[in-house]
Amino acid sequence: MVTPSNSCTYVIFGATGNLSRIKLMPALYHLESAQRLPAGSRILALGRRPWSRQQCQQQVRTWITEKTERAENSPALTKLIQRLDYFPGNLDDPEMYQRLRDHLHGSDQLPASIVFYLAINPNDFSQVVEQLGRVGLLTENGGWRRVVIEKPFGSDLESARTLQSTIRRHLREEQIYRIDHYLGKSTVQNLLVFRFANTMMEPLWNRNYIDHVQITHAETFGVGNRAGFYEKTGALRDMIQSHLLQLLTLVAMEPPVSMEAEALRDEKVKVLKSVRQISPDQVPAHACRAQYAQGTIDGVPVNGYRQEPGVAAKSTTETYAALKLYLDNWRWRGVPFYLRTGKRLAARQSLVAICFRNPPQQFFHGTQAGRIRQNWILLGIQPCECLRMEMTVKQPGLEMRTRQSSLDASLRMEGDLLHDAYEELLLDVIDGDRSLFLRYDEVEHAWGVVDPVLRAWASGTDAIPSYQAGSWGPPESTRLFEKLEQRWRHSLDPEREET
Amino acid sequence: MVTPSNSCTYVIFGATGNLSRIKLMPALYHLESAQRLPAGSRILALGRRPWSRQQCQQQVRTWITEKTERAENSPALTKLIQRLDYFPGNLDDPEMYQRLRDHLHGSDQLPASIVFYLAINPNDFSQVVEQLGRVGLLTENGGWRRVVIEKPFGSDLESARTLQSTIRRHLREEQIYRIDHYLGKSTVQNLLVFRFANTMMEPLWNRNYIDHVQITHAETFGVGNRAGFYEKTGALRDMIQSHLLQLLTLVAMEPPVSMEAEALRDEKVKVLKSVRQISPDQVPAHACRAQYAQGTIDGVPVNGYRQEPGVAAKSTTETYAALKLYLDNWRWRGVPFYLRTGKRLAARQSLVAICFRNPPQQFFHGTQAGRIRQNWILLGIQPCECLRMEMTVKQPGLEMRTRQSSLDASLRMEGDLLHDAYEELLLDVIDGDRSLFLRYDEVEHAWGVVDPVLRAWASGTDAIPSYQAGSWGPPESTRLFEKLEQRWRHSLDPEREET
Repeated sequence: MVTPSNSCTYVIFGATGNLSRIKLMPALYHLESAQRLPAGSRILALGRRPWSRQQCQQQVRTWITEKTERAENSPALTKLIQRLDYFPGNLDDPEMYQRLRDHLHGSDQLPASIVFYLAINPNDFSQVVEQLGRVGLLTENGGWRRVVIEKPFGSDLESARTLQSTIRRHLREEQIYRIDHYLGKSTVQNLLVFRFANTMMEPLWNRNYIDHVQITHAETFGVGNRAGFYEKTGALRDMIQSHLLQLLTLVAMEPPVSMEAEALRDEKVKVLKSVRQISPDQVPAHACRAQYAQGTIDGVPVNGYRQEPGVAAKSTTETYAALKLYLDNWRWRGVPFYLRTGKRLAARQSLVAICFRNPPQQFFHGTQAGRIRQNWILLGIQPCECLRMEMTVKQPGLEMRTRQSSLDASLRMEGDLLHDAYEELLLDVIDGDRSLFLRYDEVEHAWGVVDPVLRAWASGTDAIPSYQAGSWGPPESTRLFEKLEQRWRHSLDPEREET
Repeated sequence: MVTPSNSCTYVIFGATGNLSRIKLMPALYHLESAQRLPAGSRILALGRRPWSRQQCQQQVRTWITEKTERAENSPALTKLIQRLDYFPGNLDDPEMYQRLRDHLHGSDQLPASIVFYLAINPNDFSQVVEQLGRVGLLTENGGWRRVVIEKPFGSDLESARTLQSTIRRHLREEQIYRIDHYLGKSTVQNLLVFRFANTMMEPLWNRNYIDHVQITHAETFGVGNRAGFYEKTGALRDMIQSHLLQLLTLVAMEPPVSMEAEALRDEKVKVLKSVRQISPDQVPAHACRAQYAQGTIDGVPVNGYRQEPGVAAKSTTETYAALKLYLDNWRWRGVPFYLRTGKRLAARQSLVAICFRNPPQQFFHGTQAGRIRQNWILLGIQPCECLRMEMTVKQPGLEMRTRQSSLDASLRMEGDLLHDAYEELLLDVIDGDRSLFLRYDEVEHAWGVVDPVLRAWASGTDAIPSYQAGSWGPPESTRLFEKLEQRWRHSLDPEREET
């Protein structure tokens, strides 16, 4: 069968699971609606359940219409469902992979280029890649092979190295797409455009003018029904090692040679390599962890973490983590980067907050203007993408009073979220654009940053502090600050005015 | 009589004239309402008309209530009128000054400190100061003496020097308040706060990042009934020598040692001194003049300048003037400053527009982002005081498209204009704060900047170009630009978006 050069077969492992239901299938539907799926592309859903093709098609139809009502009876949905086939099988069964090979190689309906999407338990990544390799499904003859791996890639430095050495026996690095859906294309592109398409930013973007940087990912929800996963993971692994360190690299990196994927990742790795290692005795000064206790969210009482279903009564898993990091390079030497994340916090907010130094002269000190506030640049990531600069301006009136004024640009409102990060990433896999996927050295160095803290916490005997659900986390977190004036910036809201 | 130390007698020369009616008396009323006039202060209105005290009080009451309806029956108006006395006299009559001295020195109702406010024809400044000096009214015994002089101070470099040498025989420089009401306190303070209370601005504020600066004062009205004055003056003298060069100094100056008046003026003079002299043969490349022809303003047909009452049929007075200036100093070498002003232009707009260079690398050139636009900082002065930064951000959507986004802060809306510049300036005279008044060396150097152009234009034989009323001035003005990409920035409106 002759198909367009970029058409492919999308083989989804774990197709009956949560990620497939909530993210992948709806994303594929939206791409179909936008006519972005290459003609001739096929989807092969793989799962343990003994479904028929029709059952699978019916189920996916239901998932999509549940999320997008207007999808029902749409030509796009019909078209997508026609692309869809089901393949039942058990990941632990070696014979299944042979059947799969025969199916994929034997059909002239299926494009020769194949994406294997591993929407499965991270513990199974090694096994699946090994089996695919064993039966020859990763050999590129006639079409390409690409494997998409969800995070986490390993659970610490050592396990990441082991996983990598296994899959590299069967795949070249260019075939591996380590996905981090938190960093959708638009967030990354917004940051790159903001930094490198504006002459005004780069001269300010260094230790001479910036006092410190805060990167926050705050959630209001708790562990939900994910205790099985979360108990073994915790906030540091779940969010900081992946998402927040990714944001850090985008904020801190040098201008790349070009916007090509490899050029970007070269610069990101340089940032991670320049993070000053936290020695075991410095962990208390550089890291803070805590667990949520009961409290209220939006006026509703909620359980503490240890009362959640599936959580051990004496669990020491952290639901809040904060780090202070220094980058030992020319641009950032001496500028602290504060990273924090937590569940059951007071508000849902992902935010990069850049705090500038004070002007070198407090010209207006003697006047009624009082002490001039610092400038901030705030990059909102969730729930809305926006850009805010907080500057000092004069208050109207005869007196010399100043106030903080916010200069705003909304980049994308929540209502505009037509394009889920997954849509963009699924397209990028088809297009072979790896700029938003993690190269192995990024993952390895990110584990290198958090590993000393993970080890110190695992071996520590101190009780883990708690914080009230609905608060902004444990009061202990302020011990990370290196100056008295520094404090957490929780939101985009303007700070209290000073006169 | 014991009076508060800062109470004074405000002697207004030309009190029956336009400026007094439209600006001074209403400003004094507003200060009275705000309880800002020192207790015991008195106002002596001086004019040629044979009014009685009551007639004058009645007239001033009418002027104020005409402008501010709610003033009628207000206690503040009553209080102000009680302070007011009238003194009839002819400026050419030497005997009048003796009578005035006897009146001022003879009354125990009048505070000993005196402001002489010269709201009169500039040709009479010398004479009045000389006469006041001759009769001893400028001698400070018991109270201070301050003289407020409206612009223009001279009509070229030579006449300004002559005027200065005359009045300096009778007054110390600290007693002379050269008023420029265009630069109200809030405009100056907004600019100073913007530049020096924000860490983010100073690193960008130089030749490394700024491509060029535009300073525009555009009016929609014509010469009106001021042809007698304007025919001898023209746009270059009337606006550029004074207002626009003042703005230039505030935009371009180095950080001052402090916010004290003398420290500010030292820096402003340094800017004027560093303006590269325009040699006679360079005038055509650095200056442009034109006269408005008939056209339409807001859909209403209007006369050309030469058809205005009182204007010569072959007048060569310019109603539009534009200059390109270079500052030969470390900060600004090579950055053109474009100054322009005109009557009967398309919109009323006073604006400082700072255009940044392109980023050194057009990273997004190969993408759909196309060519990245330049950053602008726009400081609106009239009709509203505001601050706008135009930056490049990514457009929402899967494609890599960028757009210009405006980040805005409104500093003062037209509706907020509770404090006319005159109120602030009148208070400053009482308080002895000269920071907003022009020191003689500022005036002299400002004349030095425009003098070569004035002389070239006066001796030129070329016909003066015209521009249509309601347009943005003569097309010839673009010859000043040093690069093809440069163009006039007419307003705060965002530039056309580029995809």
